[in-house]
Amino acid sequence: MQAEIISIGNELTSGAIVNTNARWLADQLSQGGLIASTQVTVGDDRVYIEAAIRTAAKRSDLVVITGGLGPTADDLTREGLAAAMDQPLEFHDDSWRQIENYFAQLGRTPGDSNRRQAMCPRTARLIPNSCGTAPGIHAVVHEAAVFVLPGVPREMRAMFERDVDPEVSRLTGERAVVMRTLHCFGAGEANIGEQLSTFMDPARNPQVGTCAEEGVISIRICAQGDSRDEAAALADSDAIAIRNLLGPLVFGEDDDTLASVVGRLLIDCGATVSTAESCTGGLLAAALTDVAGSSAYFQGGFVTYANEAKTQVLDVPAALIVDKGAVSREVAVAMAEGCRRVSETDYALGITGIAGPGGATADKPVGLVYIVLASNAEPTVRECRFPSHLSRRAVRDRACKTALNMLRKLLL
Amino acid sequence: MQAEIISIGNELTSGAIVNTNARWLADQLSQGGLIASTQVTVGDDRVYIEAAIRTAAKRSDLVVITGGLGPTADDLTREGLAAAMDQPLEFHDDSWRQIENYFAQLGRTPGDSNRRQAMCPRTARLIPNSCGTAPGIHAVVHEAAVFVLPGVPREMRAMFERDVDPEVSRLTGERAVVMRTLHCFGAGEANIGEQLSTFMDPARNPQVGTCAEEGVISIRICAQGDSRDEAAALADSDAIAIRNLLGPLVFGEDDDTLASVVGRLLIDCGATVSTAESCTGGLLAAALTDVAGSSAYFQGGFVTYANEAKTQVLDVPAALIVDKGAVSREVAVAMAEGCRRVSETDYALGITGIAGPGGATADKPVGLVYIVLASNAEPTVRECRFPSHLSRRAVRDRACKTALNMLRKLLL
Repeated sequence: MQAEIISIGNELTSGAIVNTNARWLADQLSQGGLIASTQVTVGDDRVYIEAAIRTAAKRSDLVVITGGLGPTADDLTREGLAAAMDQPLEFHDDSWRQIENYFAQLGRTPGDSNRRQAMCPRTARLIPNSCGTAPGIHAVVHEAAVFVLPGVPREMRAMFERDVDPEVSRLTGERAVVMRTLHCFGAGEANIGEQLSTFMDPARNPQVGTCAEEGVISIRICAQGDSRDEAAALADSDAIAIRNLLGPLVFGEDDDTLASVVGRLLIDCGATVSTAESCTGGLLAAALTDVAGSSAYFQGGFVTYANEAKTQVLDVPAALIVDKGAVSREVAVAMAEGCRRVSETDYALGITGIAGPGGATADKPVGLVYIVLASNAEPTVRECRFPSHLSRRAVRDRACKTALNMLRKLLL
Repeated sequence: MQAEIISIGNELTSGAIVNTNARWLADQLSQGGLIASTQVTVGDDRVYIEAAIRTAAKRSDLVVITGGLGPTADDLTREGLAAAMDQPLEFHDDSWRQIENYFAQLGRTPGDSNRRQAMCPRTARLIPNSCGTAPGIHAVVHEAAVFVLPGVPREMRAMFERDVDPEVSRLTGERAVVMRTLHCFGAGEANIGEQLSTFMDPARNPQVGTCAEEGVISIRICAQGDSRDEAAALADSDAIAIRNLLGPLVFGEDDDTLASVVGRLLIDCGATVSTAESCTGGLLAAALTDVAGSSAYFQGGFVTYANEAKTQVLDVPAALIVDKGAVSREVAVAMAEGCRRVSETDYALGITGIAGPGGATADKPVGLVYIVLASNAEPTVRECRFPSHLSRRAVRDRACKTALNMLRKLLL
């Protein structure tokens, strides 16, 4: 079984954006047991689009295409598909009504240009879009099942899950693939890879691999079996063995994030948390509240960016800031404890540091961050020195994750 | 002049990692005046690699390949290239000495597996790697210049800049390409596309296209000319015409974000801002402080997630919350004005709403968000009803962007 992904857009061929859609689709397909061994990206050009679709449909059983379905003149995927199918584009009344309904929900009416989105080749059918204006297209070209999805990631993902995934299951038949992913924080990929070396033999089933993204090392377990139960049993057995081996380095599975795991632990023990942030500027509070239902344990947070805010809002003594500096262990402790006192929460996290690129001094480099977890016992203090090659954004991200991980480990 | 990028690796075809190399290369090539109109990704498979190289070399003048040059058995790019050239692989003494020297610098000796890295097709030449073990390869296949670079981003980039970039300049000669991107917020892609219809004729130079990402519509202008100056003049002329047409819908160019633009405007008028957030939970403060140097205008922020926090920290009357509800115009105004008073800033932004998926009532649906900008004049109030298909994350993101845009428009 051959699958292929075609990504369409000048923003991709010019290098303006990273192709995250192709990665997401490849991941979904491989979880479904199909590896997209060829992936092609072409610009918004009818001739290139047509050629890519013709070639893919000849050599593959499933072709997933994204992008170029918008309402503007540079969206040419419909035209390219019609050419590859040697068919004209036709206007679909049903789809036009769906587009009109979508706009009506927003209290608007579609423009003339949106009419292009109701066009598709004669033997193809339009796929409704539940969260946007661009319908998708399903067609059969040279016996290959071809799905054209919008380039907007949210719309593309919803449509894939509803309309393409069942086709993947049908194509792969009985050979079942079960994927499990474990997420770790607090060690590097090489370190984790060495600990897992016996699992990572390429000839082994399940296949085990690691990948690193923004400080989180994810371990992918891909098990194959004659039935779904058999594959799941193999994947589960590996997941248990790896969890035993790595202990609390593993913080969660699949869709878990550090914030969602911390949230569950807080709910389990009926505890609350608040935040006092300087260099992370609200990112820690934003991560905690990214989790639906976080109002059960998150009271509130303070972004005390200016020194006066630290003093005024969190009662950090002005003299302490002058004496030790705003980026110091002592100020971080005072921020966390002041925050816990003011918010009347069980726990409080305080962060102060130098995210860069400016603000460094001889003894306080970019990447120096103090993180404090205040509770009814002695505060836990962590001095982090993030490597100098990390960007401002990465330093802030790692500081937040380290703070969440400190709270997670305390709650375990 | 045609350029093509081939990315090789199972970690790409399985969706384990995002292909950032292809984006970086496409960006470099387009800056150099060559658009890589086709980009192909294949797995670590000799037959697929050979086919991709044969096809690319026939239709392109320059082919840049990354990945599959490592020392292990699953690195098959050398073999695929040799097959595409109908040549055997030969061992290169010079390159082997360079690999030995590289290891010697690290106080190590290369293993037997590294000998594979000194192999290349007879008429090709190996390119020294200044920061890793894998040499690159330069070959001519069907008159196309083919460069094979390592997959490790740091090594790939160094080698591209030293060895491929000069070839790009040679190929493009005097024909120059200049790209400009304008970013808009506050209208949909179709609406903007209709306003720009005369610019978006595919036969026109510059080429103009739009793409949408998380509420921001970006307009890309790609101008070609016989000299860089000529192309730049064409791009600038379009950028000015489009800005005149769209007015304040355009908030910035290239790397600008709403937060960085607001930051510059605040600095220009020496004003300060603070934030009071409920449903966005710190995301607005995080966006403002994502900009280096934001301490010049961002004082601090309050994440008043719980009702008591709104009352205690921002002096929102408890009776008002009971009477109107935490998600109401009146509470949003009280939050913003309380925040401005407590923080002593020129402006304050207050946000309260229902990000979902829970929390909705009959008259207050998910997506209802009140945003208030307090200043020394009457507060500006915006009632947003974000569409129901938006995720929690998207509602929070759009609310922050709308808030930043309100401040931007006031400052203009």
